Amino acid sequence: MNSSLLVRACRGELTERPPVWFMRQAGRSLPEYRKLREGVPMLESCQRPDMVVEITMQPVRRYGVDAAIFFSDIVVPLKAAGVDVEIQPGVGPVVAEPIRTRADLPRLRPLERDDVWFITESVGALVQELGTTPLIGFAGAPFTLASYLVEGGPSRHHERTKALMHSDPDLWHELLARVARISSTFLQVQIDAGASAIQLFDSWAGALSRSDYERFVLPHSASILREITSVPRIHFGVGTAEFLPLIAEAGADVVGVDWRLPLDEAARRVPGKALQGNLDPALVLADTSVIDAEVDRIIAEGRSAPGHVFNLGHGVLPSTDPDVLAHVVDRVQAAGGDSGA
Amino acid sequence: MNSSLLVRACRGELTERPPVWFMRQAGRSLPEYRKLREGVPMLESCQRPDMVVEITMQPVRRYGVDAAIFFSDIVVPLKAAGVDVEIQPGVGPVVAEPIRTRADLPRLRPLERDDVWFITESVGALVQELGTTPLIGFAGAPFTLASYLVEGGPSRHHERTKALMHSDPDLWHELLARVARISSTFLQVQIDAGASAIQLFDSWAGALSRSDYERFVLPHSASILREITSVPRIHFGVGTAEFLPLIAEAGADVVGVDWRLPLDEAARRVPGKALQGNLDPALVLADTSVIDAEVDRIIAEGRSAPGHVFNLGHGVLPSTDPDVLAHVVDRVQAAGGDSGA
Repeated sequence: MNSSLLVRACRGELTERPPVWFMRQAGRSLPEYRKLREGVPMLESCQRPDMVVEITMQPVRRYGVDAAIFFSDIVVPLKAAGVDVEIQPGVGPVVAEPIRTRADLPRLRPLERDDVWFITESVGALVQELGTTPLIGFAGAPFTLASYLVEGGPSRHHERTKALMHSDPDLWHELLARVARISSTFLQVQIDAGASAIQLFDSWAGALSRSDYERFVLPHSASILREITSVPRIHFGVGTAEFLPLIAEAGADVVGVDWRLPLDEAARRVPGKALQGNLDPALVLADTSVIDAEVDRIIAEGRSAPGHVFNLGHGVLPSTDPDVLAHVVDRVQAAGGDSGA
Repeated sequence: MNSSLLVRACRGELTERPPVWFMRQAGRSLPEYRKLREGVPMLESCQRPDMVVEITMQPVRRYGVDAAIFFSDIVVPLKAAGVDVEIQPGVGPVVAEPIRTRADLPRLRPLERDDVWFITESVGALVQELGTTPLIGFAGAPFTLASYLVEGGPSRHHERTKALMHSDPDLWHELLARVARISSTFLQVQIDAGASAIQLFDSWAGALSRSDYERFVLPHSASILREITSVPRIHFGVGTAEFLPLIAEAGADVVGVDWRLPLDEAARRVPGKALQGNLDPALVLADTSVIDAEVDRIIAEGRSAPGHVFNLGHGVLPSTDPDVLAHVVDRVQAAGGDSGA
């Protein structure tokens, strides 16, 4: 497993071509996923090993990508730790009782391994089924999870979250420490069950200034990432070009880069780190000639880094045509003249 | 009028303190606004001079800000030019027939001055009523307007827009040239009627990479801004720290900066330009001591630029307490020990 193309690229080894997978490759853009999910609420599907295995496998079978990404949702560990959270279709995660005061804090108890027996079972079954294809584990980063807990749901401006971190830094740090422990346990369970790499996903980090990220977020993401030594760590936040070195400093073997920053420039900002990215997911809707040129450009720019994992610059959009992603996989896998692994 | 504190700061003159106004100071956060708007659709309110004058004046009376911002909406000139667009509450602008092919292009006709008689009338009345307080004119930038036209409404990922610009650059440039002419006329009408400065607002520019902005957007924003020589030009896009020099290059006496980038760093990126910003609008919900420290920091960092216009780093959030904005105005106006021009 440790000799997979993915792990070698993550470790900064020279590979004949970049491994390729897509954030959100499992999910809404696939008709076989939509069929399977009919009548099953999102969080239920994440708690049923049979569904997690099938959904995680769907894009592996369809595309022949070089890695599977564990199908889950960033709020799954919160729910498993007793938070009353549901995913409302068309809205996103909705938290029944937001956490905004010191009195709310005890409601956020630690995650026990037994709470996520279904994760252990799902990962174990997946590793068997995947064979030589590596499985990437997955967790939301403390800032992004805390934003859902404080706002009570998705938020465009994160105003309560930002007001809390600045107005009561002690409470903020206690909240983030608790969230970080939950994310850490969630990742460790996946690693222990056989995940070959992990990705810590900080969807909303780009809403912060560099100094706020450094002061209020970095220590907590670092507390998760520094404990992970046995598998490569991919650390990704959208819109974080301005503080990419802090994303690396928090702990990363691979720094995820969105589509806004060319990989050669990213390589200058985080020297010595492997990079992941960064095709604009919107451009998957453009003409094939445009996509081909972008893929080639990104592969060329990725050579500036010690290792490159080809991916989109953010998750697959629901409107994406799976045949186009299949074409992207073919093009990346044809680069370097061999199919890798 | 030309000796107003705002215009002097925009021109890069040393001022005793920064002038202060807020993007979206007129509108949803004010109870007097919500009362006035009861039963009146958004775009109707923008087309009625009595309402435009009253809504524009409300924050000037309440806060004593150093500038009024013309109350309008970025789609007003599109509607005046015959586009079937409405603002749906809770959604945003919805375009009945999106523009996606060459055959759609002729539907976007030029804006004639007679189409916006209500703008001329509103600005004229406002300039009288405002006295020595300058009025800032306002238009949406071509990329942001085009995104609404192509997507048919607000879009998180702008995928059709990005696909179009890459897949059919000729059509894209023709579309943006048409939109730019409309924005240009809309601004010229406001200047001719007495606006003391203008702001070109590119809400969505931050969704683009630097190279896409440079190739597909900059020439069109520049075509608007280079024609404006009689009043200062403020050019602002959210999340544009990575290509701030291009925002300046497109044409700007004042570069607007969101909350993510400290003004002293912004000043290094666009030397010689005045700056506008950049209090995080979310932090207006924090404790007063936090707000005061942020205001003082921003005023201090703003001294790195030749001129500084104090503002938020994006528009006033609907949940903002007007009393807090009043406090911010007081604090900025007390800086330098005098209440300015």
